This record gives sequence, C-alpha cells and structure tokens, in this order.
Amino acid sequence: MQQYIGAINTYLSKIDFPTAPTDLYDPIRYILDIGGKRLRPAFCLLAYESSKPDWQSIIPAACSIEVFHNFTLMHDDIMDNAPLRRGKTTIHEKWNPNVAILSGDAMLIEAYKLLTKVESQYLRGAVELFNDNAILVCEGQQYDMDYETQEQVSVDEYLSMIKLKTAVLLAASLKLGSMLAGESEERQSLFYQLGLDIGLGFQLMDDFLDVFGDQATFGKQVGGDIISNKKTFLLIKALEKAKGESLTALNHWLEIADFDPSEKVAAVTAIYRDLGVDEIAQDKISEFYERAEAVLQRLSLNGTAHDTILGFMQQLRTRST
Amino acid sequence: MQQYIGAINTYLSKIDFPTAPTDLYDPIRYILDIGGKRLRPAFCLLAYESSKPDWQSIIPAACSIEVFHNFTLMHDDIMDNAPLRRGKTTIHEKWNPNVAILSGDAMLIEAYKLLTKVESQYLRGAVELFNDNAILVCEGQQYDMDYETQEQVSVDEYLSMIKLKTAVLLAASLKLGSMLAGESEERQSLFYQLGLDIGLGFQLMDDFLDVFGDQATFGKQVGGDIISNKKTFLLIKALEKAKGESLTALNHWLEIADFDPSEKVAAVTAIYRDLGVDEIAQDKISEFYERAEAVLQRLSLNGTAHDTILGFMQQLRTRST
Repeated sequence: MQQYIGAINTYLSKIDFPTAPTDLYDPIRYILDIGGKRLRPAFCLLAYESSKPDWQSIIPAACSIEVFHNFTLMHDDIMDNAPLRRGKTTIHEKWNPNVAILSGDAMLIEAYKLLTKVESQYLRGAVELFNDNAILVCEGQQYDMDYETQEQVSVDEYLSMIKLKTAVLLAASLKLGSMLAGESEERQSLFYQLGLDIGLGFQLMDDFLDVFGDQATFGKQVGGDIISNKKTFLLIKALEKAKGESLTALNHWLEIADFDPSEKVAAVTAIYRDLGVDEIAQDKISEFYERAEAVLQRLSLNGTAHDTILGFMQQLRTRST
Repeated sequence: MQQYIGAINTYLSKIDFPTAPTDLYDPIRYILDIGGKRLRPAFCLLAYESSKPDWQSIIPAACSIEVFHNFTLMHDDIMDNAPLRRGKTTIHEKWNPNVAILSGDAMLIEAYKLLTKVESQYLRGAVELFNDNAILVCEGQQYDMDYETQEQVSVDEYLSMIKLKTAVLLAASLKLGSMLAGESEERQSLFYQLGLDIGLGFQLMDDFLDVFGDQATFGKQVGGDIISNKKTFLLIKALEKAKGESLTALNHWLEIADFDPSEKVAAVTAIYRDLGVDEIAQDKISEFYERAEAVLQRLSLNGTAHDTILGFMQQLRTRST
C-alpha cells in the first residue's frame, strides 16, 4: 500500500494548477496538500495491479477519485459549518464560503479532467462509473442532512445513507481499477461489492472512533457526534435499547441545549457502554468485514494482492485514527 | 430557432430525475422549469444543423450545456446573495444555501451524464471541450467576485472576465455542435470564435439593458448594477471619462452607503448619458457583432443556417430583455 500512497501523493503534489485567479486554485492546492489516507486511489491501484502490473499508468484516473473526494469534503464542511478538517482550518473559514463553493466546483471539474486521461477504450465506462457514483455521493450527503432534522432514523435508513455517502466511492475506486485493467464486468461487480462492504465497515468504525477513540491519535474532536446529537449507528441503537432510567438520561442529554461538552460526552459514552452499544457496533463492523472477506475469497486474487487487501482491511478495522 | 428551443424545452422537461432525496432533485427541476433563453443549446443545434440534418440526435449533449449553465446560476446566486432569478425566488432563498450548494453539485454531475450520451467517437473531444470551458467559467466567476473589492478594474480586465464568465460557454456550445457534426478542427475553431464574439456582445448588451432597459420588459431590476456599484463596462468607462463636476457627482454616488435606490439609479444614469457612455457601449457592442459577422462570413454556411444565425444575432443585439 505504501508505494501506492507515495505515488499518489507525488502525483497530486505535481498537478500544475494555474496560478490565477488565486482564490480559485489556492484552496484546491491547500486541501490536497493537507493529506489524508488516500484510501480511494490506493484501492483503485490495488484492484488494477491484482491483474495488471503497470499500475503507474492509471495514477491520474485513481487520483481523479481522490480529487472528487476532497471536493465533497470542501462542500460538506461548508454545509456542516466545520471549523477543522484533518486538524487544519477549513476552506470556508480560512477564506470564505463563496471561495469554498466555487473552488469546490472547480475541483469537481478538475476531477473529470484527471479521469479523462484514461485510454479511449475505457473512457465511456470510466466516465459513466464516475457520474453514477458521484451523484450517489450527493444523495448520501442530502440524506445525512435530512436526518439531522428527521425525528426518527432507523438503522436501515442510516446504513443506506452511509452506503451512499461513503461506501459507493470506495466501491467505485476498486471497480475503476478492475475496469481499467480490462477485467470482466462480473469481476468489476465483485470489486464493487467488496468496496461497499469495506466502506460500510469503515464508516461504522469512524462512528465508533468518534465516541470511543483516543483523543491523542484520533485527529478530530472525540465526542463530536455526541455533542451535536448526530444520529449515528451508536445513537440509533442506544435509543432502540434504552429503557427506564437510561432512556430518561439519554433523552435528557439529547434535549438540553445548555451543557458542558465534556460532561455530556462522558455521560452519553457511559450510557452507550452500559447498553453495550460499543459491542453491538463492533459486531456490526465485523459483519461487514466478514462479508468483505467472503467477496475477497470469491475474487481469488493472486497471493500478494489478496494478502495486501486483507492486511489493509485488518488495518482499517483496528485503526485508531 | 423556435423549433430548437421547443425541442430543448421538451427534452429538459422530460429528464427523469429520481424523486428522492427531494431536496436534492426538486431544486434542479425547479430551476430548469423556470425557463430561460436556451441560447447555448440552441446555438449547439444550430451549428450542428448547418452541416448535418439530424439535429435531434444531439439534443442531450446540447442540453448538457444548458444544465451546466443553470448549475452556475444556482451557485452564482448564492455567492451574489440574489433573491430573484428570472422573476422567481432563487433556490438558496426558497430552500436554503446548503440545498443550493448540494443541488448545484448534483446538477453539474447531471450535466456530465447528459454529455456522456454522445456517440463514442466524439466522447473524448466532447468531454475535454466541456472540462476546459467549464473551468474557465469558474475562473470568470472568481474574477467577477475579485473585481467587487478590487479598487481599479480596467476595460481589458473587465472584457477578459466576461469572456470567461459568459462568452466561452456560448463558444463551446457552437463548437460542440460543429464537433458532433464531424466538422474539421479548423471549422470548430471558427465556430468557437463566433461564439466568443457573440458572447462578448451579448454580455455588454446585458450591462447596457441593466441601466437603459425598460423595467416593463427587462425581467431583472433595472439599475441593479448601479445600486451595487458593479464595475461593468459602463461604470469603468464613465470613471475613465468623467472630469470635474461629473466625476465628483459619480464618486459621491459610489461612496455613500445611505441612499434612495431610485434616486441613485436616476442620477448615475443621467451621468452616464452626459458622458456618452451609452453610445460608447453601443459602439463596443457593434464592434463585437461586426467581428462575429466577419467570422460568420468565413464559415460560409448554407443560406438557411447563415440567415438563421445572422437573424438571431440581430435579435440579441436589439433585444429589450
């Protein structure tokens, strides 16, 4: 994985954006330079190299997904009014919301520019894959915002939302790699399914770490979801399971507007533990990773590719950041 | 032209967007249903039909530019804090800014979806043309915002800005039509140049109508640019030409924050007339339309196509709305 990530970072750092207008292009450079896991392009290269060796040839296409992902972050951060991203000031705070809107728009177009560098025989497939999944990511973000004000959100609704918002882009990354390696549609679909399962497990792990993560390594504010009453898997499950005293306490913390943040985080975290919501979340995460492993088996990749993906899945599952 | 516009409106009205999430798709339907001149897709069809008869076959591609254009309007209206668009409440007002951001994003992707319907042999050319010009439109919008706070804006800077913000998309529309008809790169470039000249004339006419238009037919608030001190061609020229008393009066209206809008509009309009800025603007518009006519000659289109474009140019030049 490390060689992919190194190559991705090198490529991203060398994209030669125009120098003017500065407020359009500087934020793109800024957000790409902040870094990130580069999970999506790395998956794309991984899927490609599992059947074809010259993975360097598709780095621009792989990076198109990373640029798209960063575009969604730039716009999501405006909508969520987020002050920080990966420990750095967000674009709409460092510049202003208009800059973040327009720079994000330009970034989406830049993503298409990178994607268009694929060989002509794959262009239609790649652009259609990108179009179809990019719009699903927007749908996911809309549901995410809708659920902020929707009284009741079911576990199924939540899982459908994170599937759209997070999993489909991981799935599309793997599928793109397989497609560009000239693999069959059947294998492309298996890679897509693999990405969906990994993505769902990945997002649930994100929710888990937001509550049970270690502040020293997590990067974001631990407890942020609790403070904002975000209806994550954990809260939905807790509301499902809570009765009597714990339900009263949970509702109390959900309802009061005036509270000490660390007190609320500590109290709600304790309720989650009492209800066993941490274990339920871990079980659900395991379920998705097991489904992913089953799909991985069906792909019967060569030893190295298989082990790399499996190792990477383990890493995502046991990550603390 | 009317048959093109009819076909474009029919096609746009029949695009089958998903029904959910409603806040993502309803605004797209809303802005497309408000209408508009449909200038860009009509130009695309016109260029196509000047050499190939089956213009109906490229309606989706032509409409991709219209959808892109409406995406830029949706986002520009947030940035400009505009309450009305074509006499209707803007998306960020009717819903909220987050909805307008995300719905706009989805609309940009929908534009690519429509464009991707072109025949495979033209896909690369069409997507590259679209990418390259879409990013220029973003640059134009950024310069437009930059000029709001930039002390001095020259006529050249202003013309470069409106070229990016308005003219390149008209140019790309004509070029796309020519490209999809299988014409040579040389002819595609001539169509592009034609679009640039028409577009520059078109935008200057817009500036002119904003001041000297008839409120009954104009659609937007006459004098809006004067009220907001927008550095249009008219204001830049007026500041260039004004001396003594008229310069003092002009600067007075530019500087005071507290004023009666209709009083300011009347006073500044009178200054413009005194300085002959209305005639200078008309001369500049004529210059661009004459350049466009010269390019049109060089294209030596068949009689019908030539006359349609020429007639349409006349219509744009003498429009009151």
